[in-house]
Amino acid sequence: MSTQVQLPKGFSSAGTAAGIKPEGVLDMALIYSASPASAAGVFTTNQVVAAPVKLCRTHLENPSAHAIIMNSGVANACTGEPGMQAAQTMAAETAAALGIQPDEVLVCSTGKIGPQLPLDKISSGIEKLVASASSAQVTTTAEAMMTTDTRPKFAMRTVSVAGQEVVLTGFAKGAGMIEPNMATMLAYLLTDAALEPHLLQKALKQAVDQSFNRISIDGDQSTNDSVLLLANGAAGVALDETIAEWDLFGEALQSLCFELAMMIVHDGEGADRFVTVEVTQAQTEEEADGAARAVANSMLNKTAWAGTYPDWGRIMDAIGYSKAQVQEEKTQVYYGDLQAVSNGMQSSASHEQMVKAVSEKELLIRIELGVGEAAAVVYTCNCTEAYVRINY
Amino acid sequence: MSTQVQLPKGFSSAGTAAGIKPEGVLDMALIYSASPASAAGVFTTNQVVAAPVKLCRTHLENPSAHAIIMNSGVANACTGEPGMQAAQTMAAETAAALGIQPDEVLVCSTGKIGPQLPLDKISSGIEKLVASASSAQVTTTAEAMMTTDTRPKFAMRTVSVAGQEVVLTGFAKGAGMIEPNMATMLAYLLTDAALEPHLLQKALKQAVDQSFNRISIDGDQSTNDSVLLLANGAAGVALDETIAEWDLFGEALQSLCFELAMMIVHDGEGADRFVTVEVTQAQTEEEADGAARAVANSMLNKTAWAGTYPDWGRIMDAIGYSKAQVQEEKTQVYYGDLQAVSNGMQSSASHEQMVKAVSEKELLIRIELGVGEAAAVVYTCNCTEAYVRINY
Repeated sequence: MSTQVQLPKGFSSAGTAAGIKPEGVLDMALIYSASPASAAGVFTTNQVVAAPVKLCRTHLENPSAHAIIMNSGVANACTGEPGMQAAQTMAAETAAALGIQPDEVLVCSTGKIGPQLPLDKISSGIEKLVASASSAQVTTTAEAMMTTDTRPKFAMRTVSVAGQEVVLTGFAKGAGMIEPNMATMLAYLLTDAALEPHLLQKALKQAVDQSFNRISIDGDQSTNDSVLLLANGAAGVALDETIAEWDLFGEALQSLCFELAMMIVHDGEGADRFVTVEVTQAQTEEEADGAARAVANSMLNKTAWAGTYPDWGRIMDAIGYSKAQVQEEKTQVYYGDLQAVSNGMQSSASHEQMVKAVSEKELLIRIELGVGEAAAVVYTCNCTEAYVRINY
Repeated sequence: MSTQVQLPKGFSSAGTAAGIKPEGVLDMALIYSASPASAAGVFTTNQVVAAPVKLCRTHLENPSAHAIIMNSGVANACTGEPGMQAAQTMAAETAAALGIQPDEVLVCSTGKIGPQLPLDKISSGIEKLVASASSAQVTTTAEAMMTTDTRPKFAMRTVSVAGQEVVLTGFAKGAGMIEPNMATMLAYLLTDAALEPHLLQKALKQAVDQSFNRISIDGDQSTNDSVLLLANGAAGVALDETIAEWDLFGEALQSLCFELAMMIVHDGEGADRFVTVEVTQAQTEEEADGAARAVANSMLNKTAWAGTYPDWGRIMDAIGYSKAQVQEEKTQVYYGDLQAVSNGMQSSASHEQMVKAVSEKELLIRIELGVGEAAAVVYTCNCTEAYVRINY
């Protein structure tokens, strides 16, 4: 997959080691569009918001962008006025080096909360990035975004519109502090289609709701989450809701986001098991979602999955304290195809069958609440001793 | 402490190994009052409720009780109609052996969710308990309540009322699946004072709100939580709100509950650090409570405390996604007496000072939100690799 992923037309990118992280690890990335692009963004809902997120929100009041500059290692969160000035400096220096306006630069940071950005290192990083940006640095760009990630995350989709090919390429990072509503994650989505900003924002919101907002690693939400979508029109294809292929574009964007989101869950800190929690027959979608998240975020369930311990009682317990209406005697729980709970009680499946069922590396937990017709899915992972070590 | 704890007048108790748990481990307990006692109870708010909890609620419609029978090892939750019948059988057999009525018996179970109770073992356990009950088995009784607890939990208070001594004795269990609103915990509070049931219930509710409802271990809430309070009047002292010592009794009850709750947190599964999270200057008490719980339940904070890693950014992050109103620039955070966050930014404390401050076995985290005058405290513990192992 990785060798096939390319940037859409008119985009270049770079990653470099600016010395923010120790030992020459990549820690800064640049994405540049040769022409101004329509831009959209979705950000953290945390009240404690990193300076670069505040700056992005301001810059997106005019929904056009020329470049994204980012660093990993330091989050530039809880850094007050000096932090805000540092984010502005990142934008200004990037703009100067590229010959564009500061408010055409979107800025992201990820890493430790609290320290101020080392601006001298950032400055020399920007110089190197601008000098080296090309269409051939997809992997390097994604690597520079990593914090506790163990592998770079990027993917691509193509859509054919009236015989023309539109490319969508996405980058993402995030392995811990992940909870729906997009926690400690960054994603950049680039396309060479042309879209009006309001349509871009709408398409982004829909795609994020069905992808990044459906994953949970540890239930923590971060100060820095940002998903940015840039559309530069370099493919010569204009898209809007009146065009037959509009839905195809939306589906491709959502599919791209979904693939990136699944990469994040698969790379959950210390995790070695991917878990899909599907709740059906709930009274409302909100309740289905609440029940799925209660199970996905429960430490008792996450540790049970680490030990491949088929303790379905912890699932019943979690849905019972969720905000979903639960009636024990109407509840069914399945591990994959194996029914574990029948009408709120232990099914006839043997312990051995259950152990085998929960030992799947990709575990599907299906919960039928039996009280309605709404459904929701959340994607998560197990919690191992390694998670604790990583976060020491 | 343990050698000094005695039962109030008129109570006897016993613990035994009925074979529900392997290898002769104590797994059943009985508490008996020679005369019928006023009774009050507070139970789990989980929608998935164990059979014995349902039975206790029914029996407490007449707020009088003669005995408590309990087992550990099997929760009798998610056991359907057979489970309900088993709980009724426990009450009936205990009543028959003691010569009292079944609805004068309160029933509790704790342990694994799902399996049916082994009624033959329960029956012989009841026989042994009734035959051996005495005033000298405080420790054995508490030991029989344990599941993943590493030590028995019991304590005593005395109150002098008009020259007469009133005794309050409490037992508790619970080490994991603990979240405020009383998760996976049992507590029995006994007194030889005489109180009307409605006053008993009121006093219990107040005491629980300031003790068991202020602790959190892993954010999971259980199906079986029950706190029961029995007052048998054997001391010959009647208490009501018109008596000068009423407040002393309430304070003693709350102090007893608080001591037991702190024992539970100190025995948190795999934990080796006790953490008090105090939020002040919040807009409302509910918001203060929400902010404190967000920090206490955050896996990133719990693991940071395991590694004695002074990452105050995780505290800022957690309060930021709580429901409390947070304004970064008005927020102060302290580790004990050391200020870590000053107006939303890193204080001047050195890294070494911070490491030393968070290395305290009893860590006090104080958060001043600067937006109001309300306060709340939550007691919790760290999350170590051992927690994960215990819950495999």
